[in-house]
Order: sequence, then C-alpha cells, then structure tokens
Amino acid sequence: MITVGIVGANGYTGFELMRLLASHPEAKVITASSRSLAGQKIADTYPTLKGAYGDMVYSDVNLEEVAKCDVVFACLPHGQSADICGKLIDLGTKVIDLSADFRYDDLPLYEKTYKLTHPRPDLAEEAVYGLPEFNRAKIVGARLIGNPGCYVTASVLAIKPLVNAGLINPKTVIVDAKSGVSGAGRKADVAYNANEVSGSFKAYGVTTHRHTSEIEEKSGATVTFTPHLLPVKRGILATVYCDLTGKPEDVDKAYEVYNNEPFVHYLGSSLPEIKTVAGSNCCYIGAKYEEKTGRLIVVSCIDNLIKGASGQAIQNMNVMFGLPETMGLPLVGFHL
Amino acid sequence: MITVGIVGANGYTGFELMRLLASHPEAKVITASSRSLAGQKIADTYPTLKGAYGDMVYSDVNLEEVAKCDVVFACLPHGQSADICGKLIDLGTKVIDLSADFRYDDLPLYEKTYKLTHPRPDLAEEAVYGLPEFNRAKIVGARLIGNPGCYVTASVLAIKPLVNAGLINPKTVIVDAKSGVSGAGRKADVAYNANEVSGSFKAYGVTTHRHTSEIEEKSGATVTFTPHLLPVKRGILATVYCDLTGKPEDVDKAYEVYNNEPFVHYLGSSLPEIKTVAGSNCCYIGAKYEEKTGRLIVVSCIDNLIKGASGQAIQNMNVMFGLPETMGLPLVGFHL
Amino acid sequence: MITVGIVGANGYTGFELMRLLASHPEAKVITASSRSLAGQKIADTYPTLKGAYGDMVYSDVNLEEVAKCDVVFACLPHGQSADICGKLIDLGTKVIDLSADFRYDDLPLYEKTYKLTHPRPDLAEEAVYGLPEFNRAKIVGARLIGNPGCYVTASVLAIKPLVNAGLINPKTVIVDAKSGVSGAGRKADVAYNANEVSGSFKAYGVTTHRHTSEIEEKSGATVTFTPHLLPVKRGILATVYCDLTGKPEDVDKAYEVYNNEPFVHYLGSSLPEIKTVAGSNCCYIGAKYEEKTGRLIVVSCIDNLIKGASGQAIQNMNVMFGLPETMGLPLVGFHL
Amino acid sequence: MITVGIVGANGYTGFELMRLLASHPEAKVITASSRSLAGQKIADTYPTLKGAYGDMVYSDVNLEEVAKCDVVFACLPHGQSADICGKLIDLGTKVIDLSADFRYDDLPLYEKTYKLTHPRPDLAEEAVYGLPEFNRAKIVGARLIGNPGCYVTASVLAIKPLVNAGLINPKTVIVDAKSGVSGAGRKADVAYNANEVSGSFKAYGVTTHRHTSEIEEKSGATVTFTPHLLPVKRGILATVYCDLTGKPEDVDKAYEVYNNEPFVHYLGSSLPEIKTVAGSNCCYIGAKYEEKTGRLIVVSCIDNLIKGASGQAIQNMNVMFGLPETMGLPLVGFHL
Repeated sequence: MITVGIVGANGYTGFELMRLLASHPEAKVITASSRSLAGQKIADTYPTLKGAYGDMVYSDVNLEEVAKCDVVFACLPHGQSADICGKLIDLGTKVIDLSADFRYDDLPLYEKTYKLTHPRPDLAEEAVYGLPEFNRAKIVGARLIGNPGCYVTASVLAIKPLVNAGLINPKTVIVDAKSGVSGAGRKADVAYNANEVSGSFKAYGVTTHRHTSEIEEKSGATVTFTPHLLPVKRGILATVYCDLTGKPEDVDKAYEVYNNEPFVHYLGSSLPEIKTVAGSNCCYIGAKYEEKTGRLIVVSCIDNLIKGASGQAIQNMNVMFGLPETMGLPLVGFHL
Repeated sequence: MITVGIVGANGYTGFELMRLLASHPEAKVITASSRSLAGQKIADTYPTLKGAYGDMVYSDVNLEEVAKCDVVFACLPHGQSADICGKLIDLGTKVIDLSADFRYDDLPLYEKTYKLTHPRPDLAEEAVYGLPEFNRAKIVGARLIGNPGCYVTASVLAIKPLVNAGLINPKTVIVDAKSGVSGAGRKADVAYNANEVSGSFKAYGVTTHRHTSEIEEKSGATVTFTPHLLPVKRGILATVYCDLTGKPEDVDKAYEVYNNEPFVHYLGSSLPEIKTVAGSNCCYIGAKYEEKTGRLIVVSCIDNLIKGASGQAIQNMNVMFGLPETMGLPLVGFHL
Repeated sequence: MITVGIVGANGYTGFELMRLLASHPEAKVITASSRSLAGQKIADTYPTLKGAYGDMVYSDVNLEEVAKCDVVFACLPHGQSADICGKLIDLGTKVIDLSADFRYDDLPLYEKTYKLTHPRPDLAEEAVYGLPEFNRAKIVGARLIGNPGCYVTASVLAIKPLVNAGLINPKTVIVDAKSGVSGAGRKADVAYNANEVSGSFKAYGVTTHRHTSEIEEKSGATVTFTPHLLPVKRGILATVYCDLTGKPEDVDKAYEVYNNEPFVHYLGSSLPEIKTVAGSNCCYIGAKYEEKTGRLIVVSCIDNLIKGASGQAIQNMNVMFGLPETMGLPLVGFHL
Repeated sequence: MITVGIVGANGYTGFELMRLLASHPEAKVITASSRSLAGQKIADTYPTLKGAYGDMVYSDVNLEEVAKCDVVFACLPHGQSADICGKLIDLGTKVIDLSADFRYDDLPLYEKTYKLTHPRPDLAEEAVYGLPEFNRAKIVGARLIGNPGCYVTASVLAIKPLVNAGLINPKTVIVDAKSGVSGAGRKADVAYNANEVSGSFKAYGVTTHRHTSEIEEKSGATVTFTPHLLPVKRGILATVYCDLTGKPEDVDKAYEVYNNEPFVHYLGSSLPEIKTVAGSNCCYIGAKYEEKTGRLIVVSCIDNLIKGASGQAIQNMNVMFGLPETMGLPLVGFHL
C-alpha cells in the first residue's frame, strides 16, 4: 500500500484527491494538512468524506512528518508551492505538484507569466511534466512531477497531434474555452456567490490568462486563449479554431496517437459535451472541417478537477509507482 | 414625481428597488447610498443598471440629504436600521424599513428574537406593518412602515385566512419553507459559493429561525418553521401543514378574502410553483385536504425579492402616496 | 390603444410577448392563438400569466379575426410563417414575423439555407429587416417586418460597426456563440430534459447552423459560426474573433454609432456578461485587442427572448406606430 | 466474476448500474437490453460509457439469453416488470427488480396502490424486500429481491428506528420530501424540459403519491407524504416531522442501530445536505427536537439513483452473492 500525504488539502483539488483515493486499491491517504483548518475535522468542511475518513482531522503542516509518506500531492498556491515541494524532495519523498511551479521547460517564461523568481531552478530543471499521454516514459522514473493546468490539458491534448502531424498552421490557433466554477477554487468571494454565477456566463482574463503560455509551450502553437466561466460545477469544454494546411482526411489519422490510450478518446466528427466527461478521468475530442474557410474546429472536453487536476495527478502516481495506469480512476462520468 | 432615497442600496433588495423603480411612472430614485461602496459607480456592482442609471454613483450616507426625499427605503441590517430610520423620521421624511426593526407589535418579542434593545420604542409603537392585504387602511396615513419578512409574507398570506375563519387548529401548524439563495443576500461567504450551493439543498436554522416569531405574531398560530436553501436565485415555496377542524368545503371560502386582491391569487386545489411567481409581485396559493389524516396542506409561493421585500415595499409606497397600488409593479413573472 | 394579435402564441416567444405587453401602456393583446392548445386556458401552460390575463384562452387560428388587430406578431415555424403572414398582410393588418421567412434580402440564399421555396417573393422583397439600430427609417413606414434571429442580433450589432468602419478583415471573423436553452423553444425532447442539459455544455450545428448566412448577409463578413448550448434559461454571449486591419484606437470610435441608442451599450474594454442583459431589451458590447496576434476579441450579449426575439419585435412595433421606442420595454435586467 | 444482465437498460437506473458496475471488481455487465433502442450503440445515448463499454449495443430482450447471467437487474415499468421477472426466475436466474412489483408484503395494498392485478402472487410472497439494513439475513439466500423505492429508502431509514424504539406517535408523521429530477426518469416531456425545471420548484402528487403506502408498510407509521421536485439532478432530502412521545435524549440511542452500517450515518443534531450524499451509496440522518411543540424534526438524505435505486440494488447483489457489502460502491459523494 502506497502511503499518501496531501499538503493544502482543504481546497477542491485536495478534496478530490481524498474522494478518488478513498477507493484506490493500492494507495491510502494517511495525512492531509491545511494551515487554515489544522485541527478541524475534515468532515466539517466536506461532510461526504465522513463515510470513508470518519473523524480524521486536518493536520498542521509538518514537512518532516509528511515526507515519511511514499508520495506527497501538493495543492498549494503558485509561488508558495515550489519552496515546500523542494523541501519535501530534499527530505527524500516523491512529489506531485498541482501548482504551476514545476510545469515549464522555459524558466524565464514561467517567471514572466507568474511574476515570480523561482526558488528552486535546480528542481524546475529536473521536474517532469505530468501529461502521461505524451510523457509517460519520463514519469516512470521521476521523483518530482509538475501536474498540468486544467485548461492546458484540454487544449494540448486537442492541438498537439495536429501540430506534430504538420496539419495546421500553428500561428492561427484560437482556444475559446469554457470552465465550470470549481476551477476558481473554494473561495469566499462575492464574484463566485451562487447568485452572481448561476444563470450567467462570462469571459474573463481575455488576452491575459496565465495558462496561455503553458498551452503555447506544450503545444508548439501560438494561441489566442479566451476562458469563460460556465454556471456548472465541473468540466471544461475547449472549442479550438485553426487553419488546416494539410488534408482534411488526415485529421483522423493524426489523432490515432490516442488509439491505445485508456483516458483519451477521439470521436471523429462527433463532438463531446461536458456530460461526456464530468466525473471521469477522460478527455474526449472531436473535430469538424469547414470547407468555406479552410478552418478546422476541434472540441475537447475534460473534468477540470479530475483529468484537469487530481485524477491526472493520481494517473501520474500510478505511472511513477508502476501500478496499472487506470487503477482507482473513473473511466465513466456521472452523466447525471 | 415622488423622489426616492435608498439607504444601504448595495445589497440585493437595494438593487431590486432600483430595478423596479426604473420603470415606475411616478417615482424616481435620486439618491442611493452605501457606506462600503460610496463613490463607486453603481453599474460596477450591477452592470445591468447602466442602461437606466448611467454613471450614477453610490453616495455616502448623509441623513440630512437623504431626508429631503419624499420617501426613503432602508435596506440596513436588523438592529442598525431602527436608529437611522428614527433619525430620518425625525428629519421629516417617510420611511419604509425593510429590516425587522419595526415589524413587531410585541416589542419584548422583537427584543428576545433579535437579542437587541430597541432604540426607538416610540416609533416601534407607531410603525405600521406593511402587509397591504391585511393592513391597507393604516398604511395610507403612515409615515413609518415595517416591511414584512420574506418567509413571513408567504406564510402569513397562507395561514391567516384559515385562522381568521376558525377552520384550523392553530396549534398544529408546520411551515416547511424553501427559499432561493438571494434570500441570503450578497455575501462573500464560502457557504454561498456557487460550488457549495448548486446541485445541493439543505435545511437550516431548524427550530431557531428568527422569522418564526414574526409568523406567529402575524398569523395567530403556533408554528414549527423549517427553512431550506434552494439552488435557485429567486423564490419561496412554503408547504404548510395543519389540522383542519372545520369543513373541507369551507377552505375555498376562507380564501375569498383575496378575491379582489391584484397580487394574491388563490388556485383552489391546483398548487403554485416558484416559476408561477418569480419575477412578479404576486403570491399564489393552493390547498389540498388529506382525508386519511384530517390535515390541510397549503402551498404558497412568492418571489422573495419582490413580494417578499422590494416589491412589497413599493406596494406600500403606492398605498402611502395614494397611487394605484399596482403601479410600476410586475403582475407577470419571468417563467423562464 | 394598439390592439395586438399573436399567432402561434403557445411557445416561449409568444409567452414573452404576452409578458412584456402586459405592462405596455399603449398596446394590448386581444387574441392569442394556438392550433395545438386552442380552447385551453393560457394560464394552464403559463400560470404566471393568470394575474394579468385571468382565464383568457388560446383561440383557434382564424385569420379574418386576427387581421382585425392593428398588428399581429407571428411566432410560427420557418416555412409555415410566410404563407400566414402573407394572408394577414393581404387582409390589411401589419405583421411582425419572428420567423426567418422575411429576413433575407437575398431570396435564393434564404431558400438554400432553409431548403424551402418561398411562397411570397413579393412580400419577401417588400419586408423590412427589423434591426432598428440600422434600419429605423424603413421600419417607420413598414407593414411587414422580418424580425432578426437571436444569434444574428448579438453578432451583427458587434460586427457591423467594425466592417462599416473598415477596421477589420471581414474574411477572418469567427463567432463562438453560447445560448441559453430557451433558444431551443418549448419542446418535449429528451435532449432538452433538465437531466441532460443541467451541468452540461455542448457545441451544436457546427459549420451548419442556419443563422450563419443571416449573420453574413447582415454584417458583410464571412463567418465561422459555432453555437453552444448553455445550461441557463435566457441569454446569448457571442465571443467574436477577427483580424484588426485598422488601428486599435479606432475601435472605440467605430462603436460611437451606438452613442444615442437606448438599448445598445458599448463598454470599451470592459466585457459584458449574460447577467448584464438577461431580462432587458439591451445589447452590451465590449472589445479587447491582442497585440501578439493582431486579433480583436469582441464580446456581445443579449437576452435571446427579448432583444433576440420578442422585445425587439415590440421595439419594432413602437417604431412602426410612432410610439417612443423604449415604451414598455425593460432597460434593466434581472441580474438575479 | 459474476455475470450481470440488465433489462430495460436505457433509462437512468440502467445507466447508473452500468456506470457503477464498470468499476466493480467481481461483477461484469455482459448484456444490456432495451426494446426501444435495441441494436443502437449504448454510447450514443450515454457517451460517457464509451470509455468502459466501447461500442457495445443494446440487445433486444431475449429472456433465455438474459437468464444465462448469474443475476439480472430489471429496470422496467411497474406492472410490466412482475411478468418478466417471473419468467427469469422460472428460467433459473436470480433477479433484483427495481420496480415496485415485488416490494409489498400486503399484496392487496400493492394492487390498490398501483391499480393492477399482480400476475405472480407466488413470487410476490417469496420476494425479499431489499433494504439490507433491516433485512440482511433474508437477502443472503434470496433469489428475488424487490428493491425499495427511492423516497421510501430515505423515509424508512429515518422513521423506522424511532417507531421500533417506541419514541414517537406513529400517527403523527409527515414526510416533506424533495427529489432531484433524475427521479422522474429519462423522459421526452415538456414538464421536464430544462426551461420548465431550472430555477423552479414545486410540490406534486400531494396526498396521492404511490410511495406513501410503501413508506407506511415498511415504517409502521401513518404518513402524510408530500414530494417536491428540486432543480438538481440527483438527491433526495426528506424532512420528517413527528410528535415525540419518548425522551429527547433517547433519540440518539434509537439511531445506534446504524452504528456498524457502512452506508448509513447518523449525525445527531447536525443535519445532512444533498451534497453530503449525492454520488455515494450513503444515507445520512440528523434530528432536532423542538421543545415548544414537542416535535422531532428528522432530516434524511440519499442519492436517489444510488442508495435510492441502482447502488442499493448492487448492495443487494453483494449480499446475495456473499461479497463484501461495500464492494464497488462509492462511500464518498461528489460534493461538487
């Protein structure tokens, strides 16, 4: 049994790790820390965890203790995470970091995007980007994973096969993305009050969202990225526009890279919806060509909390520890 | 043209007053104050008001200035409102108070319920309870109105005709009420974050909610009151249970008191829904008798922000100023 | 008082006409027909109309009777509407047609798009496109109005000022649009069952939606149009992408055409949301320039049932009959 | 590996069985039949099943074939189910029937409630009511299970311990229940169109709902039962009112019957919400005593599709086949 620690466990990605790991046959959460909620019962914040975790409390952050776990998931704010993950690595455990701190190959790009100086450039260099579909071999031996951003996962899984196949002009990519409100986290903020979100819809971070540079680095395309806030709890749908330079009939072939992937499904010209994926660790992709304009329109969907965060983190853990990649991860979504 | 001031205008009842009064033919909001947002454009908080109010800003609270209005709507917290309304009355204007401070006939009951000492018992004595369907004559000459609570409006309009007609045992009343989340106001609180509210439903304030004593005073019944939080923005549905002591066929007759009311509609054994009322100033009521148990089940619906707050306040203003009672108030709800 | 008839009144646009006209000071619905619900009380379908319309029933379609009204709103399916509107015109009344049948200047384009032969090319020629912001003068004298499509209204109000000012390359326009589910109408269809819609989101009609050709004809641009289904009831948000060929600082100037429009508001680089417009007859527009790609991103929002259908139809009626253009139409949305 | 057949698999309970069983370690769905969708890909109706079931199609109903499975779940309409389940039993398989046909001890009560003549009184006599918390021993040896109704599960788990302990007057019970819209099934019906459900709330079946008699038979109380339709997809919350005749301090003791139950959790005076249970097979219960009236108010929550239908059916299967009772069943809900 793999022993698991979670740092910053009180947020939604921490909850989702605890929910998913409660039915993982080979891993067990033994400590979940939260600075703000230390000493409080976890079930006071997430009552549904009572059935699986009983009266377990959030521990205070004690890195020596946490580092005794076989693996630690870090669910901390960008900027703060790098330092803590670094100390955990130094203490000898493996770390899967859900923040942006270890995602970038290009450190100056990270520092410009997040307006920070990285405290551990040595580990930023060593860290492996945790997108198993493209990086599986490196994840196997890794001790530090930079777990991809949610919008990035949906976007890169859609775009990269097309760029790799040379089928599109990579300077023409637009990602019009829509995310459920869990992407904004567990916040006491009027902007996310149910009255302000329910029944509405908006664009935000237009031309300035920080995931843009991560999408560009990982996909190889230049991207106009426009995120929107959906009045749903879970799920991302990205509608991608790009100029097709290759033949329309080669699009299906480009996506054959996913033929043996358990979690990525290409549907041809049938397009996925959020209910296709919400609740599962899957990404579904479909594509349509518009003859009039020569544009390809690709729709890609994930659950932002699962394949976009905690599920992908567990998938990385499975790969790191040599477990079956799908172990403990939902192949089927809620639909309802 | 009646000049209107709103104090504490930044909350949802203040917004709703501004929205409804924007199309009132004989009243005009000339000042809207907010201590926390003073100097800020109203449309920054409520962009939809831009079309009607342009770049109007929230003013700071200046009671001398506000008192120059023909009428002031006070949208302030219970306890703080009494003092400010008292000063406005002393300065010579008319006041419609949306807080609980001037609702009670029994001042000790108010003080016990709200755990406060009332600063203006003189005015508490003078104030008129603003439920026009039962208090119209007194409202006409009033200078100070205690505008009813939202749950109270839905409950009392359902129960009072039955108590008045002596048809039910007033010791057996249960009000199982469900309210939309706008009833909780415009709050930065994780408990009202869209992720926590959407898709869920809960009881709260069970056996302890403060509206209980107001329902009891105004209806003449002893009431078990259980409010619940609905994942909708607007609307209250109250399901009322009581032992029928009179004849089932007399129930319809008891509700004939509403035959000429523009805003209260009795549907017989057909039961209203929230979509029947949301967006309108109406209360719809239906009732079914259960022979097996001798119980009468009454369903009553209102829009908590309109008939349950700002719309009823405007209805009171219309009555106070001798305008047609329905002026500027929606008879029809959104349905969609 | 203008007498109003509604044909095909049982759907959502018919409901919305009845709701809005209930508080119009100079117009009154005197007949509302529905083939499928003839003889049934309107309040059985839309209980909230009871307060304003009492026990009024849907009449059967009798064109001679309906034609006695000063104006008839036709809420009929595309293809069926042209014939009935034609007969009403022949009988001497004025008609505002909410279907697509009288919207197009280019009749073959209409016939190709809707796969129909138009039964009244004479009237298609005469009919005036009912977008008052661009066509006000012609609407004044018209007897037949083709009321614009919902997606088209949101898109054209955003695009046309840019095309007219020569600021963008009209071959590069992408409209990624998102609509509330009322746009699909009042249907008994599993695809619109609440379980299938709530919490989900999808693209539909990708590369094939019929509004594409109407957007292109009215805006002068070539458009990739991708509609999506939002889990909200009302509202459209269109995110428009295009290559800016003029100077970024001239964008604000292009939108000055709306400076005196009561219902269209340009917000500069501030972007509207659905809650800015839902419940009002307004269109709000904002725009941001992305230097990296030279693209302009424009966001445009309307309420699909109001400015996108029934409200705009009433706005056209006001213009046709010389009434103040804003009469009876909401400037302020629900927000909640 | 237990082989599983599902009859009537196209509805929501059939879907939920397929979703849950996809990760059950000891059971596998080998045939899923649907008369209306026979021959169609299951993933066309429920795209999220593609990842686990690939291109599997709905089979036509062939009882001989289905009866080769170790166990069959019947998801058929009341009345039709008894006949088919009877034939399957005759063919030698075990059956878990999700309809009402085998739930009642009192056959005339069933026939009166459902207005039917039961085709297989022999099997109605033999069938075991599948509420494991009260019937575990009998389920072990059973070949035919009547799986409880959703409202009944939530209600009986709340009421029965109180009745058994003699703490309440069983003639005073009111169940004010609220259910998500998945309880109504997968229907093409305007009443369940997203536009009609979202943002609304209503009571239905007041004094006449068929679950009333099942609640009464299984709890031993006389019950006023009022179901309501919540604008959520999953979950039931039942607010139960009854006159306490015993001591308030004995209430907690009465619920100690659940101390070792994995799926039923008693929270004392803390009250559960729908988000506590949605997505899990758990029932959470809390209770508050009101001194003023002597009433006990109990709140009980389940996921209607899981503990209220398909999850409980799998729990019954686990018990029948001697597997660990929690195998393959979620202890933790979605929360989000």
